[in-house]
Amino acid sequence: MGKETRLDDILTQLDAGLDAALDRLLRFLEIPSISTDPAHAGDVRAAASWLAAELEELGFAVQVHDTPGHPMVTARSEPGGARPLLFYGHYDVQPVDPLALWDRPPFQPALEDTPQGRVIRGRGASDDKGQLMTFVEAFRAWKAVHGALPSDLILLFEGEEESGSPSLRPFLEAHAGDLRADLAIICDTARYADGRPAITTQLRGLVGQEVVVHAADRDLHSGSFGGLAANPIMILAQALAALKDDTGRVTLPGFYDGVQDLSPELTRDWQALDFDAAEYLGRVGLSHPIGEVGRTALEMVWNQPTAEINGIAGGYAGDGFKTVLPAMARAKVSFRLTGTQDPQAVRRAFQEHVRRCVPADCRVEFHDHGASPASVMDISDPAFGQAREALGAEWGRDAAYIGAGGSIPIAGDFKQLLGIDSMLIGFARDDDRIHSPNEKYDVESFAKGARSWARILSALR
Amino acid sequence: MGKETRLDDILTQLDAGLDAALDRLLRFLEIPSISTDPAHAGDVRAAASWLAAELEELGFAVQVHDTPGHPMVTARSEPGGARPLLFYGHYDVQPVDPLALWDRPPFQPALEDTPQGRVIRGRGASDDKGQLMTFVEAFRAWKAVHGALPSDLILLFEGEEESGSPSLRPFLEAHAGDLRADLAIICDTARYADGRPAITTQLRGLVGQEVVVHAADRDLHSGSFGGLAANPIMILAQALAALKDDTGRVTLPGFYDGVQDLSPELTRDWQALDFDAAEYLGRVGLSHPIGEVGRTALEMVWNQPTAEINGIAGGYAGDGFKTVLPAMARAKVSFRLTGTQDPQAVRRAFQEHVRRCVPADCRVEFHDHGASPASVMDISDPAFGQAREALGAEWGRDAAYIGAGGSIPIAGDFKQLLGIDSMLIGFARDDDRIHSPNEKYDVESFAKGARSWARILSALR
Repeated sequence: MGKETRLDDILTQLDAGLDAALDRLLRFLEIPSISTDPAHAGDVRAAASWLAAELEELGFAVQVHDTPGHPMVTARSEPGGARPLLFYGHYDVQPVDPLALWDRPPFQPALEDTPQGRVIRGRGASDDKGQLMTFVEAFRAWKAVHGALPSDLILLFEGEEESGSPSLRPFLEAHAGDLRADLAIICDTARYADGRPAITTQLRGLVGQEVVVHAADRDLHSGSFGGLAANPIMILAQALAALKDDTGRVTLPGFYDGVQDLSPELTRDWQALDFDAAEYLGRVGLSHPIGEVGRTALEMVWNQPTAEINGIAGGYAGDGFKTVLPAMARAKVSFRLTGTQDPQAVRRAFQEHVRRCVPADCRVEFHDHGASPASVMDISDPAFGQAREALGAEWGRDAAYIGAGGSIPIAGDFKQLLGIDSMLIGFARDDDRIHSPNEKYDVESFAKGARSWARILSALR
Repeated sequence: MGKETRLDDILTQLDAGLDAALDRLLRFLEIPSISTDPAHAGDVRAAASWLAAELEELGFAVQVHDTPGHPMVTARSEPGGARPLLFYGHYDVQPVDPLALWDRPPFQPALEDTPQGRVIRGRGASDDKGQLMTFVEAFRAWKAVHGALPSDLILLFEGEEESGSPSLRPFLEAHAGDLRADLAIICDTARYADGRPAITTQLRGLVGQEVVVHAADRDLHSGSFGGLAANPIMILAQALAALKDDTGRVTLPGFYDGVQDLSPELTRDWQALDFDAAEYLGRVGLSHPIGEVGRTALEMVWNQPTAEINGIAGGYAGDGFKTVLPAMARAKVSFRLTGTQDPQAVRRAFQEHVRRCVPADCRVEFHDHGASPASVMDISDPAFGQAREALGAEWGRDAAYIGAGGSIPIAGDFKQLLGIDSMLIGFARDDDRIHSPNEKYDVESFAKGARSWARILSALR
């Protein structure tokens, strides 16, 4: 039989096995693997064991690795001379507070019929157990049809994604040889807002910087010192205000080094998304896109860097009024990066700018938070075109290459520590309520997600 | 006997009676008249009664007026065709927290010998019971020598000064006819920093304004919305930063209307104070005076208006980092006013400025706090020259006309509701620790303070 026919068999197998697959997912969702809560450490391990058992049954060579935190589950299929692919997902989940807002116990998952269709309701349904299981069900159906797993698969399932992944980078460093594939495939993202399938091909990087301006060695009375003594809030406000010019451009010298204009291909793709900035902003009560004059809204969110103030505090901001000149003021500032912008160079440029704004008798203190470059995948890799075609066939509409305004640290880690790009494909919806009460995953996302992987695997194997 | 001789007798009488006067003050200080604490309401009333009894014994016609808060004590001497004078002080005190930092119980006052001289230690010793009693002891000595009180005195002693004086303005309005004098004399200020006697002839006014900038109707993720959605912290920072130009001048249109350059007389006087801005700032860890280029430091603090940010808050400013675009940001801003600056015009100009900085899809909310004009006394009133001469004679050094960077609301209230200027003379020292643990009043301040009032009364009667 030819490849086409076998794919059809796999898809038929998936459809026939959907109820059993949903049952398995419900069992997985019953395990309260909340990684951030030490009281659930045993449950996190139980989820790892459950997953390891599933994978072993399918014929993978499985290992559950202890770490200083929660276990890493790795699994490998037989080598077969194909391009090695590294599949990533995570089996831990977010806490469930506030519990009172759940319509059902978060770890007693169930299928529910809703006006928008049938959904799987429960903590982790979408993020990320349901998505992770789309991989597993595709592998299972492949095995049922072919009698063997696809060759050259490496699986990495993490149990700390929702608690900052403290063990991930050391683990990747220690096992880089075993994990090095040609491409990583990550299922932890969503379809495009309108439901069409999407491949995320670029992610913004992030530099986080805290700045504290110190003036007098104590709080001063504004009657006795106002007009004479430096006010650290004003110094900070002036330094931060000067970060952008009237056209919305960031003023730091060299800030735009490495920022690349969008390629004609992505320009066309993004235009086809018909992104409605007014509708997007309207959902949160705004109407007017800010940002550099002359850029489209999607460019601003996905392909342009930002300078944002995320927090500020100084002096007395409670009820009433206090005529104080405070001793200090602080702000948290972040920069989203694109292209090949250098996080350390951006940090330095910001610090130098602030230092220039601070008078000689005042002092500035910096606390560095994260620094990661943007991830821009090489979409000339044929895998991207093949995956895109496979997704289009499954969903009956063109798959989109999209960007993401936020960072997904795992993609940066794979690039930095394993030297490989990631193909980010996920089937979640914006209304899945991940991290919130009443999390759900559409049965359509789950069923067609697994079918999508069967098609992609078929194209890549 | 001539006036001179009687003054000498009064001064002799004061010196001879100092120990008894100190005893009386210690009894007064034993009453814990903390006005802000409802548990001490009875003590506040007890202090009013104690004072009323003292004044009655001296021959004043005394009234203790109930108010919605604490009592007002008023007292009058006989009319005699002299210029009526209104003496003001307050008999309530600040709370004593933190109690553990006191070297002795705050309401078990005592005389203490210190390397800097003999002091009266206890809550209220300086602020304001000790200062208030300098009036009373001067009246007592006058009566002892003359057989009668000075004529045409009106006394007003308040019990709510340390808790915002909520009953004061209604009381002044209701009793304006009875209280209207030619001049108010207030004993609630300090000598100049170097210890020379001083008359405060101008006080800055104050406008307090809270501003809240609202952007999105919820906190946003800076990955999903950064670069596209308005950031209220940035809007606020830009609006506040623009309040001052590079030379330190406030940029609000019309802001300087009514600000007056210092008269040649006060320019000379203030220069003679040898104010050392470097020393003054050095005490709080600073060295560089800010403010409008070309102004002296004393001008900046006493005769120039200010625009200061007293508090700011928005987004996440705690430990760690949160990539949030907050829904709102707020700041508390105050303006110190001089000359005839109109508080309402300043408030309007600020609000209009902020509104111009806020994009159409965002919203700004203002909360008005206090608004009081500057108080500039008419020092051509002969009483000022006479008081200055009397102080010089007592202290053996020229008395200074000084300004105050802060406002003293009672002076504005007297001006507004009774139509009279105030002569602010006090004997406190900068190191008296008012409002703090271990408050003290120098015995020298008390003794020479009472003698100063005897001299001033003698000159004005």
